[in-house]
Amino acid sequence: MSPFRKLVPYADQAKARGKKVYHLNIGQPDIPTPPEAISALKNTDLKILAYSPAIGNLSYREKLVNYYQKFDMAVSPEEIIITTGASEAIQLLFYACMDRGDEIIIPEPFYANYNGFAQIADLEIRPVSSYIEDGFKLPPLAEFERQITSKTKGIFITNPSNPTGSFFSKASLEKLGELVKRHDLYLFVDEVYREFCYDDNEFYSCLRLAGLEEHVIIVDSVSKRYSACGARIGAIVTKNQAVIDSLTRYAKLRLSPPGLGQMLAEAMVELPESYLAEVKQEYDNRRVVIYERLKAMPDVVNYLPGGAFYCFAAFPVDNASKFCQWLLEEFEHEGATVMLSPGEGFYASPGRGHNEVRIAYVLNCDDLNRAMDCLEIALTVYPGKTQKLDASMKVSLS
Amino acid sequence: MSPFRKLVPYADQAKARGKKVYHLNIGQPDIPTPPEAISALKNTDLKILAYSPAIGNLSYREKLVNYYQKFDMAVSPEEIIITTGASEAIQLLFYACMDRGDEIIIPEPFYANYNGFAQIADLEIRPVSSYIEDGFKLPPLAEFERQITSKTKGIFITNPSNPTGSFFSKASLEKLGELVKRHDLYLFVDEVYREFCYDDNEFYSCLRLAGLEEHVIIVDSVSKRYSACGARIGAIVTKNQAVIDSLTRYAKLRLSPPGLGQMLAEAMVELPESYLAEVKQEYDNRRVVIYERLKAMPDVVNYLPGGAFYCFAAFPVDNASKFCQWLLEEFEHEGATVMLSPGEGFYASPGRGHNEVRIAYVLNCDDLNRAMDCLEIALTVYPGKTQKLDASMKVSLS
Repeated sequence: MSPFRKLVPYADQAKARGKKVYHLNIGQPDIPTPPEAISALKNTDLKILAYSPAIGNLSYREKLVNYYQKFDMAVSPEEIIITTGASEAIQLLFYACMDRGDEIIIPEPFYANYNGFAQIADLEIRPVSSYIEDGFKLPPLAEFERQITSKTKGIFITNPSNPTGSFFSKASLEKLGELVKRHDLYLFVDEVYREFCYDDNEFYSCLRLAGLEEHVIIVDSVSKRYSACGARIGAIVTKNQAVIDSLTRYAKLRLSPPGLGQMLAEAMVELPESYLAEVKQEYDNRRVVIYERLKAMPDVVNYLPGGAFYCFAAFPVDNASKFCQWLLEEFEHEGATVMLSPGEGFYASPGRGHNEVRIAYVLNCDDLNRAMDCLEIALTVYPGKTQKLDASMKVSLS
Repeated sequence: MSPFRKLVPYADQAKARGKKVYHLNIGQPDIPTPPEAISALKNTDLKILAYSPAIGNLSYREKLVNYYQKFDMAVSPEEIIITTGASEAIQLLFYACMDRGDEIIIPEPFYANYNGFAQIADLEIRPVSSYIEDGFKLPPLAEFERQITSKTKGIFITNPSNPTGSFFSKASLEKLGELVKRHDLYLFVDEVYREFCYDDNEFYSCLRLAGLEEHVIIVDSVSKRYSACGARIGAIVTKNQAVIDSLTRYAKLRLSPPGLGQMLAEAMVELPESYLAEVKQEYDNRRVVIYERLKAMPDVVNYLPGGAFYCFAAFPVDNASKFCQWLLEEFEHEGATVMLSPGEGFYASPGRGHNEVRIAYVLNCDDLNRAMDCLEIALTVYPGKTQKLDASMKVSLS
């Protein structure tokens, strides 16, 4: 299970004792869901909330075509399948594209729930290591290649990345695409954070990779983009017709994606670009706060994330899971503490990430600064602190 | 795949040629979703559509407790898990309660999508035959017992039944419960039509079966009850804590059920009982129309369904799938035809149901009468008509 879930009871107890908990452990933004879209929903003249088509309402898929066009992603409504969040998109892809016992390569650290989805579909995840020291760059192609076996069906990446916030450039994606083509694999790309690329990072969708039309499958969702996690509306986009056909059969099994969520999503996707520009600026501000504050803490390893609203940090502690629990159970500063996600839950390789955490910068800058105050002090008083990053991490890097 | 899906292109073509198609093939009611509940949704002061708890909002689960109390189903909010429709409820149960290769016993005919869900979870469905001649009564216990192997984990029934409309009495459920207990099985019961029991049939939930608290798992949904199929809100109810724990882990994987659907469901579950009483009366009227009209057609075998809004009928035709396709492709009466679901798609045993259809009485009585006019004439002019029900059916009954 997702590593942050294990800490929930400790957070609940802390709050029950009156402690303020800054939640940087979960990707639930504090940004309002676009009020214009909620108004559109409230103005509905809906009479019967019937099943939508299994692949989603055509009117919504048509609007998504225009949205994707802004990123030079040329697709038709027939190349889009609406899902119950990105979670269901991943599950449907696992059923539709792979057989039991097949393997999939994923750079680690990765979104922890992939493990559960793979387990249900009886797939094996083969991790390829990326490292905090270079901001979790895409691993060298040789590392991917080393994991390819006769059972490998695909590579799964998230760009920009949850949980690391790393951004993958067009050049690195093109190289990965060549490898994908050479080995005739699928390239699954979760692009739910595509609006949130910072500095000079220009988002490049893998759907644009020339000659990879049959290989690339995009996972999407409105949850983070529009702060509408509860809508449960995601999408799969691919130009591979056989995959669309197989997905459609699985989509029909569960009848239809949520109808009210689709109505909201249809209103959100038509919002002026200024809405997302403002949201991006807000996350960018938060990113800088988190980066600068972590950088100022002694013996903390961090980096400037290129996208999304996450980053990893390595702490001078014996064990980051213990530290995260201690933050909730024992520590408090001015009546508050901070909740982080232990890093090890995002790794498949044993021993990796044990002094790392994932931070989701989903609170406003004032709250983030207060949370960083807590963290800064906590790191100086934590009983299990170490003077420097411990040896086992360096070993894993050698 | 669901048997009616195969006919969809023929229906689309018929409509494109200007033919009116009466859809009795799918459980999408024409009843308005309760306007009061839609109004409640429109009055929301929602600011952030956040993830709900993975098991559903507590406020909704608390209201469901009161709703179930009306049927003498004594449960706590902790014994309810909110799902993305009954479809997801079934999938989660298959993952949570069974291992790959396990077997489940289901009376046939059954809801065709069970096959797909079983395939994903790598389960084998062992059918127990029920027959149109006695209105698809629950098969004798000896028939269930004959299908039990060392791999059998549970029995799955729907009461009242989709696709047959049959109603199972307290006495027959108690007998089944004894068998379930004797063999230490799960008893999965889909009760989404519990309000729609006609004549003197008094609904009895298997959750009330004494001594079976650890065995019984109820599947529920707001889709049909409130004509809100697009809300995608279902539920699982069980007093088995280990099952709740396992389900919760799977529920957390997909983060949360739809948020707007839960808001609507919360408003619907508080509607006065008069709402559902009116809806039930409407379905009862339709039931009588369908029953009387079918009964008047020569050589048609039918029965008075005891619940839900479905029935089966056996026709004097060579093949009901061919007949259903012919209705769409070739037949028309006063510019209209009728779409039915071929029966064979609801059976697991080869050869069964090939002259049967399922009829969903989801249209108003006037439209139902017009649809029955079409059917009555069609049966007299269909080129593949037979004088009586053909021999293979009688053989299967012997």
